[in-house]
Amino acid sequence: MLDALFSPKSIAVIGASNRPLTIGYRITQNLKDIGFKGPIYPVHPKDPEINSLKAYPSITQVPGEVDLAHIVVKNTMVPAMMEECGKKGVKFVIINTAGFKEIGGDGIELEKQIKEIAKKYNIRIFGPNCQGVMNSDTVNPTYANFTFTKIKPGHISILAQSGGVGEVINQRLYQLDVGIRMYASNGNAADISIPEILEFWGNDEKTRVIVLHVESLSNPREFMRVCKAITNRKPILGMKTGRTAMGARAVMSHTGSLMKADTSIEAIFDKCGIISFKNQEEICQAAIAFASQPIPKGPNVGILTNTGGPAIIATDECIEGGLSLPDLSEGTKKHLKANLFPEATVSNPVDVLATAGPKEFAVAVESMLKDENIDSLLVNFVTPFFVDCAGVAKEMVRIAQAATKPIVINTMTDKTQWKETMDILKAGGLPTYDLAENAAKALVAMTKYGEYQRKQDEPVASFADTDKKAARQIIEQAKKRCCEFLSLGEALGVLYAYKIPATKFTIADTAEDIMTSADYVGYPMVLKVDSADIIHKTDKGGVALNIMDKKTLKEKVDSFQKQFKGCQFKYMAQEYLTKGREVIIGASHVEGLGHLVMFGLGGVFVEVLKDVSFKVAPLSEHEARGMIQSIKGFAILKGTRGEKGVDLNRLAEFLMRVSQLLTDCPEIRELDLNPIMLYPEKDKCKVVDVRIRI
Amino acid sequence: MLDALFSPKSIAVIGASNRPLTIGYRITQNLKDIGFKGPIYPVHPKDPEINSLKAYPSITQVPGEVDLAHIVVKNTMVPAMMEECGKKGVKFVIINTAGFKEIGGDGIELEKQIKEIAKKYNIRIFGPNCQGVMNSDTVNPTYANFTFTKIKPGHISILAQSGGVGEVINQRLYQLDVGIRMYASNGNAADISIPEILEFWGNDEKTRVIVLHVESLSNPREFMRVCKAITNRKPILGMKTGRTAMGARAVMSHTGSLMKADTSIEAIFDKCGIISFKNQEEICQAAIAFASQPIPKGPNVGILTNTGGPAIIATDECIEGGLSLPDLSEGTKKHLKANLFPEATVSNPVDVLATAGPKEFAVAVESMLKDENIDSLLVNFVTPFFVDCAGVAKEMVRIAQAATKPIVINTMTDKTQWKETMDILKAGGLPTYDLAENAAKALVAMTKYGEYQRKQDEPVASFADTDKKAARQIIEQAKKRCCEFLSLGEALGVLYAYKIPATKFTIADTAEDIMTSADYVGYPMVLKVDSADIIHKTDKGGVALNIMDKKTLKEKVDSFQKQFKGCQFKYMAQEYLTKGREVIIGASHVEGLGHLVMFGLGGVFVEVLKDVSFKVAPLSEHEARGMIQSIKGFAILKGTRGEKGVDLNRLAEFLMRVSQLLTDCPEIRELDLNPIMLYPEKDKCKVVDVRIRI
Repeated sequence: MLDALFSPKSIAVIGASNRPLTIGYRITQNLKDIGFKGPIYPVHPKDPEINSLKAYPSITQVPGEVDLAHIVVKNTMVPAMMEECGKKGVKFVIINTAGFKEIGGDGIELEKQIKEIAKKYNIRIFGPNCQGVMNSDTVNPTYANFTFTKIKPGHISILAQSGGVGEVINQRLYQLDVGIRMYASNGNAADISIPEILEFWGNDEKTRVIVLHVESLSNPREFMRVCKAITNRKPILGMKTGRTAMGARAVMSHTGSLMKADTSIEAIFDKCGIISFKNQEEICQAAIAFASQPIPKGPNVGILTNTGGPAIIATDECIEGGLSLPDLSEGTKKHLKANLFPEATVSNPVDVLATAGPKEFAVAVESMLKDENIDSLLVNFVTPFFVDCAGVAKEMVRIAQAATKPIVINTMTDKTQWKETMDILKAGGLPTYDLAENAAKALVAMTKYGEYQRKQDEPVASFADTDKKAARQIIEQAKKRCCEFLSLGEALGVLYAYKIPATKFTIADTAEDIMTSADYVGYPMVLKVDSADIIHKTDKGGVALNIMDKKTLKEKVDSFQKQFKGCQFKYMAQEYLTKGREVIIGASHVEGLGHLVMFGLGGVFVEVLKDVSFKVAPLSEHEARGMIQSIKGFAILKGTRGEKGVDLNRLAEFLMRVSQLLTDCPEIRELDLNPIMLYPEKDKCKVVDVRIRI
Repeated sequence: MLDALFSPKSIAVIGASNRPLTIGYRITQNLKDIGFKGPIYPVHPKDPEINSLKAYPSITQVPGEVDLAHIVVKNTMVPAMMEECGKKGVKFVIINTAGFKEIGGDGIELEKQIKEIAKKYNIRIFGPNCQGVMNSDTVNPTYANFTFTKIKPGHISILAQSGGVGEVINQRLYQLDVGIRMYASNGNAADISIPEILEFWGNDEKTRVIVLHVESLSNPREFMRVCKAITNRKPILGMKTGRTAMGARAVMSHTGSLMKADTSIEAIFDKCGIISFKNQEEICQAAIAFASQPIPKGPNVGILTNTGGPAIIATDECIEGGLSLPDLSEGTKKHLKANLFPEATVSNPVDVLATAGPKEFAVAVESMLKDENIDSLLVNFVTPFFVDCAGVAKEMVRIAQAATKPIVINTMTDKTQWKETMDILKAGGLPTYDLAENAAKALVAMTKYGEYQRKQDEPVASFADTDKKAARQIIEQAKKRCCEFLSLGEALGVLYAYKIPATKFTIADTAEDIMTSADYVGYPMVLKVDSADIIHKTDKGGVALNIMDKKTLKEKVDSFQKQFKGCQFKYMAQEYLTKGREVIIGASHVEGLGHLVMFGLGGVFVEVLKDVSFKVAPLSEHEARGMIQSIKGFAILKGTRGEKGVDLNRLAEFLMRVSQLLTDCPEIRELDLNPIMLYPEKDKCKVVDVRIRI
């Protein structure tokens, strides 16, 4: 429990100072400014008074209990101060001081040392190298932080790995006149971690939405576990920065170049229902709507406007964000026709005209919200000087307060001249925007979250006909041999155990043997030379396609024998598949996370167009289908220009079976089914080549 | 010349009113509020005084000259008022009244009528159904508009087809404390058009950048002519709304579905150097930088920061926008190393650390601007309370004023607490942003404009070896026959005249004839049945590929003869091409614009992935190459996985030759070269099928 961190009853500042331009002074001033209710104990070796507060030479000499102590002394002095905190029985320390893990060398040692002291005394550490925390609570507000942004009470909590980014988001919300609930930027996170803070806020009733900034995740699995539990009942809006960083780990073997720096964090966000943003403005704007509005039950948005142009912008943005603008029901249209001005447009988007007053807005808002075709409402409200705008605002608030569908309002106005109108909307809890794009984007984000909430309880796919034991046996044996890659036979054995069909094949050392064993493969057949010496075997004539009978096979075997005389090689015969649609399923193990599954069309679609999708295993059926549908070339699989599509159910099943295999065999580091040949006929679909690394 | 519209010496308001909540009152009040220097003449049938101004029963009774008259009376009364204006010698009228062309029927008639009156008296009309104009000129400010947004002097001029959108942009800039120069929203544009206003602003010295909103263009050719001349010396930032509108005209024949609603306007913007935006916030933010900073000479941005996280965001955004973060030169790095704090990062992005003061910032800004590797500078400046931030601002302004490279500043601050710092930056003309994304996006837009400026003088490609006469003759003959589509022979003749090579082919009615004429085509050859009765000819065995000799041809001809007995058909023999890379070049005529040329890879790349590029003809070589490079599948043409690429010079030549053909034969409505088969060898590249509609 982090109560004594975010709502401490008393705070000490070790390293407090009387010089106003120091962190040690600033923290005491921030606590005074916010109106911290408990005692503030500056600690300073000599000064008897700091910033008009009684100071103490050591924390051990502070009279009362200390819930939380800031430590802002030089890094090398921190351990000694921690020892004193321990003796005093301090519950939490915020170590603002930098010069720990982040500087390497001695810093790493120092960080280890303070962690040991903390363990000894049961102190929890926030930081080091961090800003601190804030809590706008109206009963006991806290500003245990050295930054300067002002806060006011609200329902958005902000957690940022980068203090700079957190500060910007906090500042932007303040500029937008929006309150926040709690704030934390925990720097090196030596002890108290991002998941722990998230979990605490998940249980904080006044936090309605969490805004999260990350650059990396130290424990993805714990992060996912915590976030999944939270997004179940409360939205998390996430932003990952460093998208274009060059040093991204190549997590996929064959398809390594596809893995952008942020692929795994994006996939993690997606997996645990975190709505992802790429822009600080958009994350702030969306948070405002999440903090006050119910989540839409579906993608159908109604747009209501009193001016033309901005409604077009709202429409563009909604459609591009995946929302729909459905027709209104006949009843609604009739009601609008009867009650709005004759020139008004009564189809979606509804234009009540600039002359519309409180009555017209009330009619439109109320009947659109009631319409079962509509899941959410976007109102474009330019404030004409000849209209009772305050009256319009009052009506919208009145109706919204009884509504179960979200409303966002784009108020096109001068906020100084129309202050009364804006105040009414604000007091009524209606989120207001300056630009139609922002209002629409907020609805898009809320709709995405609603969709996640409705789908998240779907179970992970599981097939009863798989033979886990057989697969595990193959892998255990390979492990004993210390092999990195499974042999083709082993890999096929693993697929076989999970009922993932592959083309038949056989390998033989001699011409005689291949003639015998090839019967098993059957015709049509491909014959290949299999040798480490012969690369580019197609170019060198080492591949014979579409062999239709034993006679031709004999001819080809003879010709290989002549052609590759002197080379060390084997004969490989494989079932020949007619041209179908090639796809790739890949998987790679990501440290601390589990497996990332990749799907894409084969060849240039993957290599040039990067048209792939990633998800964290294990996959539910919904997720497997989502992966297939989310690639741009999906229509190719569905069938185009009269060509029949492939069996998409079978493809989804392949993904789910791969997912199950990965869960059962976590030793798999990489898996590549490349290509898989798909057809309209379920039973023809087969894996052509497979590679498994353990 | 629109001087008397934007800087009138006197203004009448016909339909002025004493009721404050009317347009007729509002305009008089707006003029008073802005401090209009000339006389304001309210015209009202009865009231002797309007809003404390002497009123006149008719404009004819106004004592002085009237440069500009607002008309806000009922639509049916407008013609009578126009007559009076004519008699009075009014130069310009702004008709705010609605109920003209936009309502259809009588409105269209009414609009025609006022245009005739205007012509008779030589009055210029602004509107009808419009807001009006504003001019922040310090000598004679004008607010001939009924809206409420306040303005202050600046260098951004705003022209909006939708008054609502214009108003939002104007309001947003005011909110951002940024001045504007002139504003216009001309509604129905019965007379004074968007190009005319743009041209006027192109010559207005104080307009440094134009922000333009359009939903459609009535005269694209004139628009392009004017804009090209302006963007030569002054940037236009454009936003087209209605991107997702369903009713988009299908301008391409075969590829009609590709043509999104905004394709032609996007292509027009691109052609005349208008920087295109999809978001009101971004267009406003970019305009701020354009209004004060020089245009970057190249894509290399230097980032300077005093905090980590936001610099990462700036980097992501710059890279994703196509900019580069080059290494700094060794000299710069050495200089920084010697003059910044030891822990500072001296590579790009440079981190001077939060403790950096005026001296450190001055060193960094100055030496980065001097570095020849750098074309523009983005400064992330969080304002630490322990730093002399005003001093930092002063240093930045001092250096920027002598610089020839643009600087944008992301000020992460509380503008109230750091007002002095902000005021210094503002007074120094440095554009400041609240978010790193916005600062980066502004630089991206400026860099794009710089690139356009450097390329725009490139001449249109022209080949001397084309036979315009031959092509024109074919087309003239087809026109005489009233044919919509050229026959295949004619179409090939046209290509031949422009030295665009196509596969050889011949068509014959009888088996005997085809055996003779096929010699011309040569081997390998494709034989096809050519008949309106036989569709899906491939499925029905009506296509024989890769015929290698006359004997086989005879066999195939015989077999066709048997198989299609009873059908009406011809034999078509065509040169057989081995598999190359298929591409498509298409063109379609757009009314009032000319030809839009399309390029894409064939098949699913065009149909499913919509991976195509469009440009307005005629094409320069740079534009042709740009079309090829801008598709996502470009790497496929360049060559992937060891496969040789195709002859890109030849492909660019095909595009330029098509462009020249379109210029010479404007009757061509649609042209489809689909597919063109490309190879690494220049002379093998050929058009396989062609369709031309006139």
